Amino acid sequence: MTAVTDVQETLAALRREVCALHAELTRYQLVVWTAGNVSARVPGRDLLVIKPSGVSYDALTPENMVVCDLDGRVVEGDHAPSSDTEAQAYVYRHLPEVGGVVHTHSTYATAWAARAEPIPCVLTMVADEFGGEVPVGPFAIIGDDSIGRGIVETLRDSRSPAVLMQNHGVFAVGPNARSAVKAAVMCEDVARTVHISRQLGAPVPIAPADVDRLFDRYQNVYGQR
Amino acid sequence: MTAVTDVQETLAALRREVCALHAELTRYQLVVWTAGNVSARVPGRDLLVIKPSGVSYDALTPENMVVCDLDGRVVEGDHAPSSDTEAQAYVYRHLPEVGGVVHTHSTYATAWAARAEPIPCVLTMVADEFGGEVPVGPFAIIGDDSIGRGIVETLRDSRSPAVLMQNHGVFAVGPNARSAVKAAVMCEDVARTVHISRQLGAPVPIAPADVDRLFDRYQNVYGQR
Amino acid sequence: MTAVTDVQETLAALRREVCALHAELTRYQLVVWTAGNVSARVPGRDLLVIKPSGVSYDALTPENMVVCDLDGRVVEGDHAPSSDTEAQAYVYRHLPEVGGVVHTHSTYATAWAARAEPIPCVLTMVADEFGGEVPVGPFAIIGDDSIGRGIVETLRDSRSPAVLMQNHGVFAVGPNARSAVKAAVMCEDVARTVHISRQLGAPVPIAPADVDRLFDRYQNVYGQR
Amino acid sequence: MTAVTDVQETLAALRREVCALHAELTRYQLVVWTAGNVSARVPGRDLLVIKPSGVSYDALTPENMVVCDLDGRVVEGDHAPSSDTEAQAYVYRHLPEVGGVVHTHSTYATAWAARAEPIPCVLTMVADEFGGEVPVGPFAIIGDDSIGRGIVETLRDSRSPAVLMQNHGVFAVGPNARSAVKAAVMCEDVARTVHISRQLGAPVPIAPADVDRLFDRYQNVYGQR
Repeated sequence: MTAVTDVQETLAALRREVCALHAELTRYQLVVWTAGNVSARVPGRDLLVIKPSGVSYDALTPENMVVCDLDGRVVEGDHAPSSDTEAQAYVYRHLPEVGGVVHTHSTYATAWAARAEPIPCVLTMVADEFGGEVPVGPFAIIGDDSIGRGIVETLRDSRSPAVLMQNHGVFAVGPNARSAVKAAVMCEDVARTVHISRQLGAPVPIAPADVDRLFDRYQNVYGQR
Repeated sequence: MTAVTDVQETLAALRREVCALHAELTRYQLVVWTAGNVSARVPGRDLLVIKPSGVSYDALTPENMVVCDLDGRVVEGDHAPSSDTEAQAYVYRHLPEVGGVVHTHSTYATAWAARAEPIPCVLTMVADEFGGEVPVGPFAIIGDDSIGRGIVETLRDSRSPAVLMQNHGVFAVGPNARSAVKAAVMCEDVARTVHISRQLGAPVPIAPADVDRLFDRYQNVYGQR
Repeated sequence: MTAVTDVQETLAALRREVCALHAELTRYQLVVWTAGNVSARVPGRDLLVIKPSGVSYDALTPENMVVCDLDGRVVEGDHAPSSDTEAQAYVYRHLPEVGGVVHTHSTYATAWAARAEPIPCVLTMVADEFGGEVPVGPFAIIGDDSIGRGIVETLRDSRSPAVLMQNHGVFAVGPNARSAVKAAVMCEDVARTVHISRQLGAPVPIAPADVDRLFDRYQNVYGQR
Repeated sequence: MTAVTDVQETLAALRREVCALHAELTRYQLVVWTAGNVSARVPGRDLLVIKPSGVSYDALTPENMVVCDLDGRVVEGDHAPSSDTEAQAYVYRHLPEVGGVVHTHSTYATAWAARAEPIPCVLTMVADEFGGEVPVGPFAIIGDDSIGRGIVETLRDSRSPAVLMQNHGVFAVGPNARSAVKAAVMCEDVARTVHISRQLGAPVPIAPADVDRLFDRYQNVYGQR
């Protein structure tokens, strides 16, 4: 099998995976209409696969996913890519360990983002998945590098795979697209639970040493080996 | 093909579209029982297509959609039209750029409406879709022109495609029925997110110049060309 | 056709209808597990058809619905009837215009009930469907007539087809089982919307004369004739 | 039929039941991603059947359920068992009347748990199912006996089949897996309703004698005999 065939098969598999993962965004009600998307890095290539812009989730197919280079220019595909492509391309350029990016405006996480307030680490699930509070990134306007830069600078100072962009929404990352989707799902879940807890009083903090123990264990022991 | 055939085909297509769009109202839980509806203007004719009154969403078919003139009188159909027909007909008579109207009592938007309080523009999504706060229209009783007049007067002073009618619910408009449904979906989404954000403090405002930049970009760049 | 056949056909139809209407309780998330039920009066007979006790909604069939007399004793059926049968039988005995009763512990309505606080009439939908505030009935323990009596005494003083039983949940009535289900669905919807509105301030009241106009119109004009 | 065949049939039946019951966790939205599980004791054997770790609910089959001894060691199965297996095994070792255990991080119950605040008994449904307030267990870190011990010590002092583990989530028990799932569903339902009621004021308490009467009746009369 030639290298060309290899990359075509990898691309075909990523088109199927990226397309299918959008069903998790709707299943967990992280998105309405067309307002959220998933992308994946093409391993070993300066390429990414991403949702087309403004196409409804019911109409997504592996074929209408868009392949772009890491400057956000379309390489393959008949559709315009997500309007978040530039921000996500920036993340792939600057965080080589990232293999997947998800963007949502999920309700509770975006509610924290609108107040520019991080989600405090008061649940074992926050410690497990985020290793501390879920941080807030800057207010940034779409159209240049400022969203991508805000994501990267915030995530570099944190163990969290998710960032709440002020007044905007969530960007979540992971070693692959599926883990980024998981981080987006978990981010909304803890945003909701901590919000509701706070409505009637003050949640009990978790000691930093316990946060570390929980995070280490979850990253290294949980799931199938 | 004759002009008569043309209008029949247009009407048949609009009956299918208006019928199908109600599934978005239930999908996003903007309505319960029979309390919400979609209509479309028949292009180039003084006619509209609208949901029948009090018929459950499961029972809607293209055939039981009702065609009315722009005074709300039934032109074609065996059912009584939605009790909101007069208000929507008023909108079509007075706002020629409107091709679709949606009415819901969606929970969070109606909660703002019950306090006669506009939804402030504290999310990029509000700036994108509504170009500023989502405005409140007057308290108006069904049965004369007062609802339609309240909608039109409020929308004329705003870039928003949705208005919160005091103590009542949402009316959303668009160049076609699908865009009006999108505005209704987005209106509930931002009503919910801003509500939740406000429960635990004050959301950060977005500067008016940034609101303008976001609105202009979204109206002109987003989606497929 | 003989009178015996007539009543058997009526019963078979009511078994199908009562069974099917439980799907509206789950659709609108008014119930969890087995905690809610629908009943219908058998017209012209001192009988009612009701859900079996503790049977999950997935397992309901027309055949396992239970026929009881208006003292709550089983007349036909292999299952024990709902534990709310006595209360509902009391309602049928004392309110001859009632043809259907629904009981739920739907979340928002029960939250008002736990505070013994009526839902104020601050939405046109409350005026339309309930003709004023949704009233609260007394705290009453299951096992004697006190729940049924509390429902009847509260509804007699109100235009509302639903009552919030203190610390307990909702009972809704109507001329038939379907209209009682509608009242239960609407009760939760307005309980939720008014709750959410009140969380961030004071909803605007609706003038009593406007409540009357809305109620009269909705009862007499809405829907298909 | 030999004893060996008997236990194999029991195990096969429990694998099917435990697998199927996870659909109730997703139906009632008690879990996201893979964060929750059900287990059952194998009657008359020192064994339990439990969900595999980190496997999504869509991918569960009777075959990938894991059989462990009551020290949490895998006896049968190709997958690693839930990371909660040790805690649940501890419960089975110390509470012989328990035949099923469920763990979730359901939103409203976990919100109470984050404040280390029991759910007060202000609804007849709380009295019916929990016989008083839903208690809070200690903060405990995964990895030794402390979660299991916290569950057991808290449940021993209470009539409640559910405990809110501080900063963590819910553990629910029952004579079998289905009743444990029911307790988990009811726990979230009452956590939500009481939370919402408290948001706008103080729910009315229920007198202890009435709590006892409700609990006794529900445990002894409700459902099919």
